[in-house]
Amino acid sequence: MEVAQVLHMNGGVGDASYANNSLVQQKAISLAKPIREEAITSLYCSRLPRSLAIADLGCSSGPNTLFVVSEVIKTVEQLCRKLNHKSPEYRVFLNDLPGNDFNNIFMSIHSFKEKLQTEVEGGIGPCYFSGVPGSFYARAFPNQSLHFVHSSYSLQWLSKVPEGVDNNKGNIYLSRTSPSNVVRAYYEQFQRDFSFFLKCRAEELVEGGRMVLTILGRRNEDPCSKDGCYIWELMATALNDMVSEGIIKEEQVDSFNIPQYTPSPSEVKLEVLKEGSFAMNRVEVSAVNWNGFDDWNALDFESERFESIGDGGYNVAQCMRAVAEPMLVSHFGEDIIEEVFSRYQQILADRMSKEKTQFFNVTVLLTRKE
Amino acid sequence: MEVAQVLHMNGGVGDASYANNSLVQQKAISLAKPIREEAITSLYCSRLPRSLAIADLGCSSGPNTLFVVSEVIKTVEQLCRKLNHKSPEYRVFLNDLPGNDFNNIFMSIHSFKEKLQTEVEGGIGPCYFSGVPGSFYARAFPNQSLHFVHSSYSLQWLSKVPEGVDNNKGNIYLSRTSPSNVVRAYYEQFQRDFSFFLKCRAEELVEGGRMVLTILGRRNEDPCSKDGCYIWELMATALNDMVSEGIIKEEQVDSFNIPQYTPSPSEVKLEVLKEGSFAMNRVEVSAVNWNGFDDWNALDFESERFESIGDGGYNVAQCMRAVAEPMLVSHFGEDIIEEVFSRYQQILADRMSKEKTQFFNVTVLLTRKE
Repeated sequence: MEVAQVLHMNGGVGDASYANNSLVQQKAISLAKPIREEAITSLYCSRLPRSLAIADLGCSSGPNTLFVVSEVIKTVEQLCRKLNHKSPEYRVFLNDLPGNDFNNIFMSIHSFKEKLQTEVEGGIGPCYFSGVPGSFYARAFPNQSLHFVHSSYSLQWLSKVPEGVDNNKGNIYLSRTSPSNVVRAYYEQFQRDFSFFLKCRAEELVEGGRMVLTILGRRNEDPCSKDGCYIWELMATALNDMVSEGIIKEEQVDSFNIPQYTPSPSEVKLEVLKEGSFAMNRVEVSAVNWNGFDDWNALDFESERFESIGDGGYNVAQCMRAVAEPMLVSHFGEDIIEEVFSRYQQILADRMSKEKTQFFNVTVLLTRKE
Repeated sequence: MEVAQVLHMNGGVGDASYANNSLVQQKAISLAKPIREEAITSLYCSRLPRSLAIADLGCSSGPNTLFVVSEVIKTVEQLCRKLNHKSPEYRVFLNDLPGNDFNNIFMSIHSFKEKLQTEVEGGIGPCYFSGVPGSFYARAFPNQSLHFVHSSYSLQWLSKVPEGVDNNKGNIYLSRTSPSNVVRAYYEQFQRDFSFFLKCRAEELVEGGRMVLTILGRRNEDPCSKDGCYIWELMATALNDMVSEGIIKEEQVDSFNIPQYTPSPSEVKLEVLKEGSFAMNRVEVSAVNWNGFDDWNALDFESERFESIGDGGYNVAQCMRAVAEPMLVSHFGEDIIEEVFSRYQQILADRMSKEKTQFFNVTVLLTRKE
C-alpha cells in the first residue's frame, strides 16, 4: 500500500463523504482558535507583512477546508483596523495529497471570497488561492516563502506503514496486545516523519514564521492506551468477527495496518527540541467526543454524561468511514465495505453507551527561530 | 449562462474527455515551440532568475497540460549547462476556470516530476507545482510574481457572451449572416476582455517578463470569414436541422451563443499597442487541420490533400464535443447531446471531404516593458 496513493478522505458531497462527516475535525479546529489568534497576532505585529503567505497542510475537502483561512484573514483585518494599517495581500496555499478532492474546493473559492468581502467591514486585501498537491513529508513550497503554517488532524498520519510490524496479529493499529517491537516501530516512524516535517517547514517558513499544529494524539505516555487506539481496536473487532465467519481471511487483517501514530504531548515536544529549528511557544491537549453531534462540553473531561446525541454509532462509523474507506477498499476490495461499517456501527454504539469515548488533540504553537 | 461556471473542457479520461481529444491543441502548442524557446532564452539570459515562476493560463486537463512546462524547464536546464549555472528553482502555476478537472492533473504531477528528473541529464532544480482556479479575466496572481506566462487556445474564449446579440438568428457564433451590430458586439467584447487581460498580466509579471499567447483566430480582417466561424456554423446547421424536425425549439438555438472571438493578428496587435504595458516582439499565424490525426504538414497552406486520416468527421466532432459539451448541456440539457454530435459528425465528414478545413492560430510574444 502506497500511503500517498490511498490516504485521502472520501471525496464529493455524498453520505459517506468527508465533506459531510467532519464535525469532529471541525470541533478540534474550533478548540484551537485561541492559539491561532495568538500566533497570528504575534506574527503580524512582529513582521508586519505586506503580503501574507498562509499554508494549510492536509486541508482536506469540505466545510473545514476554508474555515481556518477565513478566521486568519479576519484576525489580520481586525489588527489592521486597530493599528490603522492598509490590508495586506493574502496568498493562501491549500495542500493535501494528490488524491484529495481539490475540484470540490476550487468550485467554492469564488463564493468564499465574495462572502468574506461582505463579512469584514471595509473588505479584505486581495486574496490569491492555490492548491498544492503532494505529501508534507517532503518539501512542498519554495525556500522561506511562508509566514504561517496550519495543520489540523493530519500529522497523526505517517508517511508509510512502519516496517517490521508483521507480528501485530489481529490488530490494525497499536493495541494493548501489540508486541513491543511493533510499538517501537510505530514510534520510530513517527519520530522520523515528524522530524523531517519540521525540517522541511523550517526551510519554507520565513524567520519568525509561526506554525500551529493539531495532532490527533493521547494524554498519557502509553502508546497503547485507549486514548488513541480504541477507535481502531473496535474496527479490528468488526474485521476479526468477519474473519471468524469466513467472510475475510485472517492474513488479510494481519497484513492491514493503519499508517498512523497518536503521539503524546511530550513526544511531540521532544521532536521539536531535537530538530531545533523552532521555539515551542505552547503545548495544549483538548478533547472531542467521538460523536461530533454531542453537545456537552468537550473540554469537561470529568463529565459523566455518556449518552450520545442522535445515532452515535452511525455518526462515528460515518466519520471513520469518510477517513478510512479508501484505505480499506485498497486492501480488502469494495465488496466488504458495507458489512464492515454496519458491524462497526453496532460495536461503536454498544461501547459509547457504556463508556465515555473521546479523541484527544495535541496542539502546539511553534515559531521559526531567527 | 455564467461563462465561468460552464466553460470547461470535458473532464476525466473517457471517450469524450478533453484529455483524449486535444490533438489539435497539441499541434498548435508544438507549432509555437520556437517562439517559446526564444522567449525563455531571452528571459533567462536577461534576468538570470534563481527562482523562476511560470504560469500556464487555461491549462486544461490532459496530455497538453504539462507539455509546455516540461519544455520550458528543459530549455532553462540546457541554458544552465551551457552557461555553467546552477539550476534555478521552478514555481509552476497551472491556472484554469474552477470547473476544470484539476484532480486529474494533480494525480499526474508526481510521476511527471520523476520522469523529468530522469530525462534531463544532471537532473532539474526543485520544482513546486500549484493549481490556481479562477478566470484570467481578473487578477489571478500577486503583484510582480511571475516571470513567464503561457496560454494556448484559451484567449479566444470571452469572459461572457456579448450583450445585444439577440438578433443573431439561426447562428450560434458569428457567421456570414450575422447582423453588423452582432459583429460589433463580439469584437468589442474581445477588445474589453483582451485589454483587461493584458492589464492584469502587466501587474503580475516582473519587468522584462515574457508572455507567449496562442489564440485561435483567423488570417484575414473579416470577422465572419470561414477561418474562425465555419466550425460553429456547421454545429448550428446540426442544431437548426433538429429545430426543423421539432426536436428542439427555434428560440433555444437563437438564445445560444458561443462566448468566443477568433481575432486577426492585427486585432491582437492593436490591443497590445493600445494597452501599452507590453512590447510586441513577434506575431505569427499558423494553421492546423480540423482533424488532428491528419499527418500532412499543417503549415503548408497550399497543399491539395483534402482527405482526412482516420474517421475525420468523428475525430473533429469528438474534439469539439470535449470543448463544447458542458456549454451545450447547460443550455439544451443532456438529452439532445448524442443526437447533436451524431448529426454534426455527418456534416463535418461531408465538408471535410470537399474542402480544406483548418484552424488558424495567432501567436504573439510580448515582453513586459521596464
